[in-house]
Amino acid sequence: MAKVTALETIDLRFPTSRDLSGSDAMNPDPDYSAAYLTLRTDDPALTGHGFVFTIGRGNDVQCAAIQALAPEVVGRDVDAIVSDLGAFSASLVNDSQFRWLGPEKGIMHMAIGAVVNAAWDLAGQRAGLPVWELLASMTPQQLVDCVDFRYLTDVLTPEQALAILEEGQFGKAERIARLKTPGGGIPAYTTTPGWLGYPTEKVLRLAREAVEEGYSQIKLKVGSDLDDDRSRLRAAREAVGPDVRIAIDANQKWDVDEAISWVKALAEFDLAWIEEPTSPDDILGHAAIRRGLDGIPVATGEHAQNRVIFKQLLQAEAIDVMQIDAARVGGVNENLANLLLAKKFGIPVCPHAGGVGLCELVQHLSFFDAAVIGLDVPERRIEFVNHLHEHFHDPARAERGVYLAPQQPGFSAAIKDETFAEYQFPDGSYWQSEAARA
Amino acid sequence: MAKVTALETIDLRFPTSRDLSGSDAMNPDPDYSAAYLTLRTDDPALTGHGFVFTIGRGNDVQCAAIQALAPEVVGRDVDAIVSDLGAFSASLVNDSQFRWLGPEKGIMHMAIGAVVNAAWDLAGQRAGLPVWELLASMTPQQLVDCVDFRYLTDVLTPEQALAILEEGQFGKAERIARLKTPGGGIPAYTTTPGWLGYPTEKVLRLAREAVEEGYSQIKLKVGSDLDDDRSRLRAAREAVGPDVRIAIDANQKWDVDEAISWVKALAEFDLAWIEEPTSPDDILGHAAIRRGLDGIPVATGEHAQNRVIFKQLLQAEAIDVMQIDAARVGGVNENLANLLLAKKFGIPVCPHAGGVGLCELVQHLSFFDAAVIGLDVPERRIEFVNHLHEHFHDPARAERGVYLAPQQPGFSAAIKDETFAEYQFPDGSYWQSEAARA
Repeated sequence: MAKVTALETIDLRFPTSRDLSGSDAMNPDPDYSAAYLTLRTDDPALTGHGFVFTIGRGNDVQCAAIQALAPEVVGRDVDAIVSDLGAFSASLVNDSQFRWLGPEKGIMHMAIGAVVNAAWDLAGQRAGLPVWELLASMTPQQLVDCVDFRYLTDVLTPEQALAILEEGQFGKAERIARLKTPGGGIPAYTTTPGWLGYPTEKVLRLAREAVEEGYSQIKLKVGSDLDDDRSRLRAAREAVGPDVRIAIDANQKWDVDEAISWVKALAEFDLAWIEEPTSPDDILGHAAIRRGLDGIPVATGEHAQNRVIFKQLLQAEAIDVMQIDAARVGGVNENLANLLLAKKFGIPVCPHAGGVGLCELVQHLSFFDAAVIGLDVPERRIEFVNHLHEHFHDPARAERGVYLAPQQPGFSAAIKDETFAEYQFPDGSYWQSEAARA
Repeated sequence: MAKVTALETIDLRFPTSRDLSGSDAMNPDPDYSAAYLTLRTDDPALTGHGFVFTIGRGNDVQCAAIQALAPEVVGRDVDAIVSDLGAFSASLVNDSQFRWLGPEKGIMHMAIGAVVNAAWDLAGQRAGLPVWELLASMTPQQLVDCVDFRYLTDVLTPEQALAILEEGQFGKAERIARLKTPGGGIPAYTTTPGWLGYPTEKVLRLAREAVEEGYSQIKLKVGSDLDDDRSRLRAAREAVGPDVRIAIDANQKWDVDEAISWVKALAEFDLAWIEEPTSPDDILGHAAIRRGLDGIPVATGEHAQNRVIFKQLLQAEAIDVMQIDAARVGGVNENLANLLLAKKFGIPVCPHAGGVGLCELVQHLSFFDAAVIGLDVPERRIEFVNHLHEHFHDPARAERGVYLAPQQPGFSAAIKDETFAEYQFPDGSYWQSEAARA
């Protein structure tokens, strides 16, 4: 009977602002960071990991929010947690005093998501399965029991979810086997060439490399200067040719009318989608933008705070592509609801990744989506950024533009000790040496 | 040239869960709390105060978020801050690294709102005016310059806002004079009789007392048990008679369909409004509920995270009454946007109050609304709960069911030192004695 004996947090920050990796129209100088947590148990070999991705300042506050959940978790029985992850998730989400701090949004909700994800990491390890296969091994009713349907039943009832999941049982074994073959995984797209701070020459070189590496889609950041966007897009389109998809991403830069006119001025470059044209909270705004764009697909979701926002984006016919994030909402459980909503509305899920460890986490959700919920969706792609994976024990891998199925038990969330020694903030060796230079 | 020399926070908690004050269908045992901040300057007589209202656990995290903003504020010149509060607010809201933790929602956004409100407190003191009169003394252009119109221009442009504010200059002096007369202030309604945890006998006694005290509206919490709601509402209606308005408040308890059927089952009691029927994020849900209720007014807003949500609630014709909260969004500046949006759509603003200090803050916004933006709106009422005001240096006051205009310079936000000595968590004398009893 292993029990959770401790919840520990680490404030981890990488100095990515130094080379403008991750720069975009709204985030000119991010320091990619993780508010990282470890659930320790009285079995020294069994630890669960989770994290919230942030971009620097405030990562300490995010750690404090995760740490505040320790009394809710420490002392619980591991088997009780992993055998009823719906109840575990609900116990955190529905704590009325913590809930007031959102509700179900922002720092407190992300903290809960990180703890929930760490519990799924424990569950995968206990089952000896990567989390996506653990999910795929669960019965439809077990999966339904993981989901909080509050605020969803006007568009998705537990009975409807059960029917979707039961349909997903047919051919499941064949899909899982295919997903595990080389080249049979989830297609990736890459944002590596597209950061706004990169000079055009670097964009071109990286775009060509992406095509050579086998990617069928790249993404460019836009929204600071229309002329600059046009010249970078023209060059990128020439570099990759007509058959590689090019998406663009404005990172919430525009108001509604500006989004429509700006994107229309880029339409000639054959856009795969416009991502985050405006506030992630503006459901009606996204719907108006989509109507105004005459068929250019609209994508959003990495900053959608919870399932209620996704529900409405789908109800309002505001998006063509739904972009879940593994560490923004309340963890695996809420993302199960999000995947089910997308299926109900027939919208492909192309997760947001990059950052610190987001590829590692979200690949599990997409492989499960392909196996049991969304099934065969040709548009499904996971974002891939070739960056910071070396810090993970079980890094996400893409080959010839396709994610390989995760194989190790758990959620691929564990970061190496040597990384903490260097990048823990402010005591790691990198930040200490920076402090000395400053 | 006074400068800000320190930003200090205090974790203040009152043990209100002991007597079920503040209990409702979603929050059975709140401990009313404030993450309280003081901006010190090198003038010892000049300090600014602000706070976030929470209901207990997590108040320490909220304090940490406010404290994380200290480097953005300490060292700034007070005159520079108070002479351009739009720029001050924007510098906090648009810090891209902090913004990632919302964006513009939850703990980080509330922290920014508390610091912005503390700056308005400084500004009122420097001007020798209560904040509502300071606002009323500003020119239309100065007020427009305080507002961040990002994500609003599809429904409200700076030019349109300017026109509203210019219209509000006509008759302003007369309105202000009238607002300052006895009985000429903003009507209040009281939630004191209506907490869910109170037995029916207590509800009845307090409802009768409210009418005797001159209140024209009371509010009852509902949503846990329909039969109980019916019997409490029947009793309350008999107690107050046909002419006193009775609103009900479900505190986000229901899904869409349940909200419609539950409220319809209470329609015979002549409801002033149904408040927070479902998730505060569910704009389309509120619109569907309002359509389904055939004329029973729908109210929400105390948990609306920012101006983008209010914009959509108005666009979608989802609400009849808009309930701003002084300490949930990004402070006075964002609430100026919210008041302007309500005026644009012709919807009355009836602020949420109660809690710790929410009456004290939000009265300033309503008096300003009555003076310059919304003007004469017969439906305007501010919530009043006769609770915890004794802890404030400049407490909100209602007489014969009407708020009196605040008179002291500043934002009425300062709490007494003896309150901290008793209720600071966990070191105050009350909590130490509790700890000793436990």
